[in-house]
Parts: sequence; structure tokens; C-alpha cells
Amino acid sequence: MTEISVGIIMGSQSDWPTMKEAADILDALGIPYEKKIVSAHRTPDRLWDYGKGAVDRGLQVIIAGAGGAAHLPGMMASKTRVPVIGVPVQTKALSGVDSLYSILQMPRGFPVATMAIGAAGACNAGLMAAGILALQDPELAEKLNKWRSDLSASIADEPTDV
Amino acid sequence: MTEISVGIIMGSQSDWPTMKEAADILDALGIPYEKKIVSAHRTPDRLWDYGKGAVDRGLQVIIAGAGGAAHLPGMMASKTRVPVIGVPVQTKALSGVDSLYSILQMPRGFPVATMAIGAAGACNAGLMAAGILALQDPELAEKLNKWRSDLSASIADEPTDV
Amino acid sequence: MTEISVGIIMGSQSDWPTMKEAADILDALGIPYEKKIVSAHRTPDRLWDYGKGAVDRGLQVIIAGAGGAAHLPGMMASKTRVPVIGVPVQTKALSGVDSLYSILQMPRGFPVATMAIGAAGACNAGLMAAGILALQDPELAEKLNKWRSDLSASIADEPTDV
Amino acid sequence: MTEISVGIIMGSQSDWPTMKEAADILDALGIPYEKKIVSAHRTPDRLWDYGKGAVDRGLQVIIAGAGGAAHLPGMMASKTRVPVIGVPVQTKALSGVDSLYSILQMPRGFPVATMAIGAAGACNAGLMAAGILALQDPELAEKLNKWRSDLSASIADEPTDV
Amino acid sequence: MTEISVGIIMGSQSDWPTMKEAADILDALGIPYEKKIVSAHRTPDRLWDYGKGAVDRGLQVIIAGAGGAAHLPGMMASKTRVPVIGVPVQTKALSGVDSLYSILQMPRGFPVATMAIGAAGACNAGLMAAGILALQDPELAEKLNKWRSDLSASIADEPTDV
Amino acid sequence: MTEISVGIIMGSQSDWPTMKEAADILDALGIPYEKKIVSAHRTPDRLWDYGKGAVDRGLQVIIAGAGGAAHLPGMMASKTRVPVIGVPVQTKALSGVDSLYSILQMPRGFPVATMAIGAAGACNAGLMAAGILALQDPELAEKLNKWRSDLSASIADEPTDV
Amino acid sequence: MTEISVGIIMGSQSDWPTMKEAADILDALGIPYEKKIVSAHRTPDRLWDYGKGAVDRGLQVIIAGAGGAAHLPGMMASKTRVPVIGVPVQTKALSGVDSLYSILQMPRGFPVATMAIGAAGACNAGLMAAGILALQDPELAEKLNKWRSDLSASIADEPTDV
Amino acid sequence: MTEISVGIIMGSQSDWPTMKEAADILDALGIPYEKKIVSAHRTPDRLWDYGKGAVDRGLQVIIAGAGGAAHLPGMMASKTRVPVIGVPVQTKALSGVDSLYSILQMPRGFPVATMAIGAAGACNAGLMAAGILALQDPELAEKLNKWRSDLSASIADEPTDV
Repeated sequence: MTEISVGIIMGSQSDWPTMKEAADILDALGIPYEKKIVSAHRTPDRLWDYGKGAVDRGLQVIIAGAGGAAHLPGMMASKTRVPVIGVPVQTKALSGVDSLYSILQMPRGFPVATMAIGAAGACNAGLMAAGILALQDPELAEKLNKWRSDLSASIADEPTDV
Repeated sequence: MTEISVGIIMGSQSDWPTMKEAADILDALGIPYEKKIVSAHRTPDRLWDYGKGAVDRGLQVIIAGAGGAAHLPGMMASKTRVPVIGVPVQTKALSGVDSLYSILQMPRGFPVATMAIGAAGACNAGLMAAGILALQDPELAEKLNKWRSDLSASIADEPTDV
Repeated sequence: MTEISVGIIMGSQSDWPTMKEAADILDALGIPYEKKIVSAHRTPDRLWDYGKGAVDRGLQVIIAGAGGAAHLPGMMASKTRVPVIGVPVQTKALSGVDSLYSILQMPRGFPVATMAIGAAGACNAGLMAAGILALQDPELAEKLNKWRSDLSASIADEPTDV
Repeated sequence: MTEISVGIIMGSQSDWPTMKEAADILDALGIPYEKKIVSAHRTPDRLWDYGKGAVDRGLQVIIAGAGGAAHLPGMMASKTRVPVIGVPVQTKALSGVDSLYSILQMPRGFPVATMAIGAAGACNAGLMAAGILALQDPELAEKLNKWRSDLSASIADEPTDV
Repeated sequence: MTEISVGIIMGSQSDWPTMKEAADILDALGIPYEKKIVSAHRTPDRLWDYGKGAVDRGLQVIIAGAGGAAHLPGMMASKTRVPVIGVPVQTKALSGVDSLYSILQMPRGFPVATMAIGAAGACNAGLMAAGILALQDPELAEKLNKWRSDLSASIADEPTDV
Repeated sequence: MTEISVGIIMGSQSDWPTMKEAADILDALGIPYEKKIVSAHRTPDRLWDYGKGAVDRGLQVIIAGAGGAAHLPGMMASKTRVPVIGVPVQTKALSGVDSLYSILQMPRGFPVATMAIGAAGACNAGLMAAGILALQDPELAEKLNKWRSDLSASIADEPTDV
Repeated sequence: MTEISVGIIMGSQSDWPTMKEAADILDALGIPYEKKIVSAHRTPDRLWDYGKGAVDRGLQVIIAGAGGAAHLPGMMASKTRVPVIGVPVQTKALSGVDSLYSILQMPRGFPVATMAIGAAGACNAGLMAAGILALQDPELAEKLNKWRSDLSASIADEPTDV
Repeated sequence: MTEISVGIIMGSQSDWPTMKEAADILDALGIPYEKKIVSAHRTPDRLWDYGKGAVDRGLQVIIAGAGGAAHLPGMMASKTRVPVIGVPVQTKALSGVDSLYSILQMPRGFPVATMAIGAAGACNAGLMAAGILALQDPELAEKLNKWRSDLSASIADEPTDV
């Protein structure tokens, strides 16, 4: 797998510490990806172009993270049939519930695969992308199986005091 | 005032019973307007064109109503400097709190003048539009003053049993 | 496409009116599916078996709907690497926010692609499944493109009074 | 533009760190403004006088920030037809949801153009004021257009590690 | 007790079905009262006058009910030292949580004695008024004691099927 | 005024930093009070005795603060007709919304005059007590009037940078 | 088992339609119980006596349902070491979240075993009581096992249209 | 009492600082227990085995703590009739409301005795376990009585400044 199959996009540089967890998972599983800032409000034309070119560029999954009135994932889902995974970034006043509702509550026709709020959600976005790609890539499927069983095997039997 | 100065747009036909209250106020105050369905997700290009042409078409205010992951008002605010008034339409599961957060929590740079959830908000969107237009239209200012004082005068002194 | 590629599972018969929207979309797009009641709490072994056999049976996507303390989607995601799409079913006291949080807030390792609360979410679950399958099925990709453009084309220019 | 056209008012000195973002935007765009503490509860007569004199003093927009049971924006909207933009200040226990509901949920007749909770909302209040004033001031319209395109141009293509 | 000691005020005729429960309690306990519509937004001057005259008119307690951005109780508390009891009226979209926060979250200096949302809160507002008046009226104290013990005595030992 | 007329009670020592604001106000206005720890759950009999003796001991107002499942104010209101003012203490996980609902949502028959969450609410509880006592104490009424006008007079005209 | 081992208590007759589900389960499993109205606020002395006599009367479990500021379960837990199971009854304005927080958020020392909001919670309260009693009653343990496996066996394989 | 009668299980090592409060109570009361990490998602088979063996191993109570989409308590309740006490661990974005709803809102058939969010809830889980065990252990009942009366006796009469 050498072609870029996953696009990680985010509304702002400030989303990167969260979204980096998605990139880390893709790195760990050897999935090529690109990472871009695509702001729905500040760079709407960039969003348009990204969405319109997604299929032709061979993107298989788009991971989109945003906070507040988070329109990036949903607008991207409107522009392309490539599956969009949304990550609600935690916010200051509303803890990311604003991000969540803006991403989750899409109307009929334009699904966004919404993940948990914050960094755990970004990590899982990477794994969901891997799960989708693994459907047509037995080698990746094996890697993903191993990643999952390694995670399980890492769990101690008893908690320990720190 | 004969030129269309206000655009009432909404994400779906189902928003019309709510948004009609904005139109009713504009009718009552003699403000010419147009009403359009512009779905952020189903007709994104229509949204784009509407936003890009707003200044040239002489629109002074855009009233945008939507429900759920309500991206229409914010995306419109991204595409034009014409003031956008947002109306969160009430929803089934989340009572319009999803609509509210999606419209209200805009990032720096792209304000949406958010109104109350539902029909009262749509009514007030019409009045807010009137208040903005009245800044450059003394006749409308008078009409708005009268509308407001009529409202105040209509309040009975005591509640009555029904 | 004749082999069953999508499993629609739900926690209870009472979830079916919601989940049927997923089935309707799959029917419309000609995607073969099965529909099962798999209750995380009442039939945990059924859940276990379903999850363990998912890959071998050739399932490509699992759509799981549940309400309240909705453990079905997340437990299924624990048992198989097949992508799981979760639909939070609306509930009486908490409007489905309980279902949503139980499905969405998965820990690192086990993503559930969460959809909007209720029937719109079920419909979108079907479309998300289609989007995933379309990645390896050009004919389905065409059908999905057409479904999306038909939806867009169906939007009237102006709202109408009823 | 030399006459004061925007009044920034707030319920308390403690709101100033938030509301200063509105002032900063007006400064950046060269819009003359005044800033006042007008407490709905502690200085109700000041509120009364401010509202009654707003039109005669030539105010075009009032930006009102307050927290908790935030009555300032709504009461000001009751006293003058000058457009009122409300900024919900974040609070300790309820994160500004109390401020938000107190400002947003105005009854028919008295709109408040509500912005996002906290400093981003104050910044956007300044921009909304600019957007309203720009309707009758082509020079300001140009400045606002430039501010918006500068913002868009400032967005990097890729996120960077810090 | 023949002089009016309690003022029941409300923001709108539509609040009366709720607020009537306060009046019913005062009737039951023989406490003279008046009932008025005083809208903070539609009749702010009426609010002003009511507040300024409250002490001189001999009012001992003011019960104020309102819904949504409910500014009446808090503004009244700003205008008079007469104790103000606030009743959050239930609302359509937000169930009265908007009313509650607008009434409850008063800043230091201006307390509003907030009751439960809706009709039970209005009933209790009447009882709270009675409790305050009973401090200086032994006969009323007796009546209130009796009302309370009658209520207790009315409770059956076992629930019955209907 | 030398007899103790106000009882400040709280569920736990940890509530004192909040409740001290009530005591400070009573000190400032020269109102004699006592302060006690009365835990509804840990010292229910103390609660019982306090409530049953309140009238005979000459208490005119009881200020009760508690957090979490805050049963103290409501149980006290059940045991005495002396007006009870409730202060919801802020909590760690739920920010005091749990305290608020436990105190506010009393059933018909047993009002608790609920104040804002946290220290501002405790301060206002002291002022509400003063307002009630002032009804029968002209000297205190004057002091309260002065306190209120001093507060108003302390408000600067403009905010200042710090 | 002929002695009454479970007490079902509730704050009001209006809670009975909910709490009856607990009784139905106890009936189905042959567990003797009593059902009483014990209002924390209207009959506090009844609550006191019930709690103080619980151990001596041989009660093994107390199921307590209440709504709003629901103090009955927690106060009962304060008065007796007999395990208390709390059922938050659904309410009109706040859907039972008020009941839930009032019951759940007990301070250290006085646990209440809280069940889901509403009728499902009442049903489960009966089952939790059965699970506790089954620890010392093998026959009941068998009945409970059978009830559970019957429930599992009743689940159809596929959902059916109605 | 020497046999292990209580199992404290938790979803992750990170839950231990919270769950340790349950262990501390059991230590204080001399109740033998074991503590295990049993992750519903990462070690589902461990969960299965633990649940299936619970009765045979003589466990009388299972205390299960988890955060986020907290499936451990409910899934355990599905696998064994041994009473399960659930502790919602506080979370970063949603303060443990996600944990709470995932644990509390169980469907008919599978009760989880839910405790308060966080450490106080864990402490109370230990006490609830003690209360259940005390039903068949008079010595433990005495210890629990003493623990409770010691707690009550430790409450000072007046709060003190720190």
C-alpha cells in the first residue's frame, strides 16, 4: 500500500494535537495518508475542491476533525461519496457537545461516522479507517487483527497502585 | 422599498412552518423579500451561488433557518459579508439544541446572529432584519417603532381566565 | 452482488421501526442484507457468535441499533474487526442521549461509527454502509452517486404552504 | 467615520477580558465605539437611559455582553430598536449555558443577535457590527472583505507539530 | 388582613394557567393579592413603576412568573427590596430550563427566590409567600400550619390501582 | 436586633467556604445568626430537632446549603413553616446541577427559595433573608436600601484594563 | 418464603403506575412484599418510623420510588442499613433527570442502588431485590435463573413488521 | 469471613484511583475481596468467564467501575444473577454523564445498582456491598452499624474557618 488512501483534515491548526492520534494509528498500521487544514468557514473553496476531487484522487476514507459549530465533516460528506469519519474536538465552554451535535445530527442522505469526543475519538477514527480499508486488503486485516489482540494482551490482571 | 433586501432561506420544506413567521413580519412591515430552499447538504452549490451573489444582488440581510446539524447559516456567513441571522429549527430528539449549537458556536471570523429556537426565533429574525434595515430607512424605522409600541399597548393589565 | 454483505442487528423488536430505514436504503440500492435481533443483555451468546463469525461469513458492514444503555454496537466492535455502524434509538425519558453516549463514547481500540439519533440515523447507516461497499464495487458507486444526485434534484426552489 | 456608531456595554468589569475582543475588531476595522459598564441589575436606570438615548445619539449597533442571569442584552433590546448583539459570557458553574439561554430565548418582539459563548463570540460580535455598518459604508465593506480574505489566506495547508 | 400584601405578576397572559396555582393557594389561606401582567420586554415601564412603588404600596412579597429569557423576576428584584419569588414557566423547546437559568442565576446583590419549574413551583410560590407573611401574622401562621398538616393527613397508607 | 433570627445550616464542613458568603452579608447588615452543620444523611436527627424547634426558638429564616443529592433544604422545609432558602453548592462532576435539581424541584406543599449555584447564591441567600426580615424592621430596611445603593454607586462607568 | 422481605415505598399515589412494575416482578417470583406511600416531605415521621423499624421488622430490601426533588430513597438510606434501591420516577419538565440526580448523587456513607428512570427501572428494582434475596435462598435463585433464561428464550431471531 | 465474597472489577488501570475507595471500605469492614481489570471491550472473554463463574466461585456481590461507553457493569449483569453494583467513573469531556447513562439505563431484566459518579460512588459501592452481605452476617451488620454511627458522631456542630 503506497498510494494515499486516507485524508486527515481538520478545521484548524489547534485541532492537530487531537487529530494526531488518528495519524499515529495509521502510521502504526502502515497506512499512507495526508494531513491537511481545511476550514469549512475560512477556506470553503478548499473544502469544495477537496470534496470534489476525493474520488478521483483515490481517497478511500476521509477523517475530518473540527470543534464548535463543526461543519467540516458534514459539508465534506455532502461533496463526496467517500466515507467521512467525524471527530468532535473538545471545546472550552461546551466540552465538545457543540462539536458533537454539529457533526452527528446529519439529515438523511449524508452520513458522518461520528467518533467519541476528543483524542480517543481521533484514535478510533484511525482504526475505523483501517477497518474499512482492511475489507479489501488481507494484509492490513492481519495487521489490524494483531493490533487488536496486542491491545487485549496488554491488559494486566489486577490494577496496581501508583 | 421595492427591491428585494432580505433573503429567507431554509434547509428544507419542513422548515417553512417555522420560517413563515419571519416572512409574516416582513410582510407586516412592508419589507420585500424572497424565500428559497437552500440545503447546505443536498444543494451545496445552490448555497455557494447564493452566498457569492448576495452582495451583487443587493441583499442586505439573509435569514437562514435549519435543524439538526444545521450548517446553512454558518456556511452562508462564510461565503458573504451580508449579515446572516440564524434560526435554529426545533428537532425531534434534541429539541433544537443540536440546531442551536450548530448555528451559534461559530469560530472567530464568521458571525451568525442566532435567534431563539423555533417559531419565536423566526419571528424575531424578521424583526432583527427590520432593525438593521431601519438604520438607513427612516420610514421603516417609524413603522418598526409603531409595531413595537402597538405590541406594548396590546398587553392587558390583568390576566383573564379562559 | 448476491452474497449478504451487511448485517442489520438490533437489541429488540421495538427498534425495528427505526432500523427499517436502514433496510429500506439497502433495498433501494440493491445491497443484500440480513436483519437480526441480537440483544447484548438478553442474548449475549448470540452477540458473541455473531461477532466471532462475522468475518468468515463475509459480512462487510454491521449496522447495530439499540436504545438506553446501548451496549450492542460497542460489544460487537469488540468482537470483530468488521466496521460497525451504530444507531442510537430514541428513548422515552432521555430522548436517546443515553443511547448516544453509550454508543459513541467508545474507548481507544474499538470504534463505532455513530449516526444521528433515531430514524434519520438509521437511514444514514444504510448510506454509510453503501459508501463503504462502493469503494470496491463501481456499479454500486454509480447507484449511490445517482441516489445522491436524485436527492439533490428533488429539492424545490421555494417552500410551499401546505 | 468619526462619530461613535457602536456601543459596547457589559454587565460588569469582569466581563471586559471577554468583551475586549469586540473592541479589538472594531479597532482593527477603524470603527469608532464607546465602551461602558451598564449593569441591568445594579444600574438599571443607566440601562434605561442608555436604551432611550441610543437612537438620538446615533448609535447604529449595541454589543451587550453579560453572564449568568444575563438580562442586559434583552432589556436593551426592549428599550431601543437599535440592533442589539448579545455575547454570553462564560460562567463558572454552568459554563455560560445560563448566560446563553438568558440572552437567546427572547420572546417575539425583541430579538437579540446572539453570538457564541465567550471570547470567540465577542470577536464575532465586532464582526457582525461591522457587517451591519458595511451595508451603508462601502469603504468599511472593503475593509471587511479584506479582513475576511486575509483570515482565509492565513490558513496553512498542513498542520504542524509544536 | 385586608390590604393587598402580595403581588402576582407574570410576563404574559399565557403564563396565567401556571401562575393561577399561586393565586389559588393565597385564596385558600385568605391572603389578599393582586394579579397583573407585567412584561419585562413589552412593558418595561410598567415593570419600572411596579418595582418603584412596591414598598410604598405596602407589598410584602412579589411573585413573578415568566418563561424563556425570563427577565421579569430578576429585574423586579433590581428595582425593589421587597422579596421576589420567581416561577420558571415551562417552555416548548427547552422545558423551562431556559426560564430557570434566567431566573435563578442572579448575580450578587439581587436574589430571586426561585421555585420549581411549572405549576408546582407556582403553588409553592404561594406557600412561600404565606410562610413569609406568617412571620408577622400569628393567625396566618396557624392557617399555614393547618394547611400543612391537612396535606400530610391526606396521604393514604397504601397506593391503589386506578 | 439581638436575638438570633437566621440559622445558616449546611450539610458538611466542606460547604462552609461557600456558605460563609451568607454569613458575611448578615454580618455586614448587623443581623444576628447562628451557623451549624446539619447533615440530612449523617445527622438526620439533628435535622429533625432543628426543624421542630425552629419556630419556638424564634428563627425567622433558615439558610440551608448542600451539594450533590442535597436533601437538607427540602427536608427542613418539610419540618418547619419557617421560610427556607436553599443554596446549591457546586459539585465536582455535575457542577452543582445535581445540587440544584435536588433543592429546586420540590413538590407542592414545601417550597425552598432556591438561589444561584455556589458562592453568589450564598451571598444572595443572606440578602434574601435580610429582605424578609426588613419587612418588619424599618431600621434594617434602611440598611438594606443603603447596601443596595452603595452597590450601584460602586459601578464604574467604563471597564478598565488590568 | 412467607414473611414480608421487601418494602416497596413511594412518595405519592402518582408514582404507583411506575412502581407497580416492581410489584409485578416480585409477584412473578413469589416474593412477599408490602407497598406503602411514604412521602419524605408530607409524611416525614412515617419515613422516620419506617426506616427505624426496617431491620426489626425483617425487611431485607427497600425499593423506594420518587420524582422531582426525590428525597425518599436517600433519607431512607440514612435511617437504616437495609439496602435501598431507588427508582427515579419520570417528571414532566425535566424527564426524571431531577429525580435521578436527587437519588443518585448520595454522599459517602449512604448508598442508594439507583435504577433506570421510569418503569424499566422499577421492573429492574424488583429483579435487583430478587438477586439480593437469592443469595440466601437457593429456591429463589433457581426461579430467578429461570426467569432470566425464559426472557432470553423469548427473543425472536428476526424483527417482524407490525 | 475468609472466603472472597466481593469482586471489584474495572475496565482499566486508570479506573483504580476511583475504585480504590470501594476497596478501602471493604478493608475497613473486614470483607474479603478480589480486584481485577476486566475490560468489556479489550478483554471480552475475561468478562464472559468472570460472569459465568461468579456464582460457582461464591461471589456475593460484584462492584464494576467503568468510564465513557461503560459496558462492563451491564454486560456483567447480563452474564450472572449475582448483584452488580455499577460505579460511573468521571470522564474528561462529559464529566461521567456518559459513564452514568451507559450504566444506569439498563433495559428490563438486567439491573445494575448504580452509584454516584466518581470516588464517592465507589465508596458507596463498598457500603452497598456491605449492606447486602450484612443481611446474612450479624457480625458484619454490627460493624456496619458502628461505621455508620461513627460517621454521624464525627460531624462537628459548627463549621470552622480553615
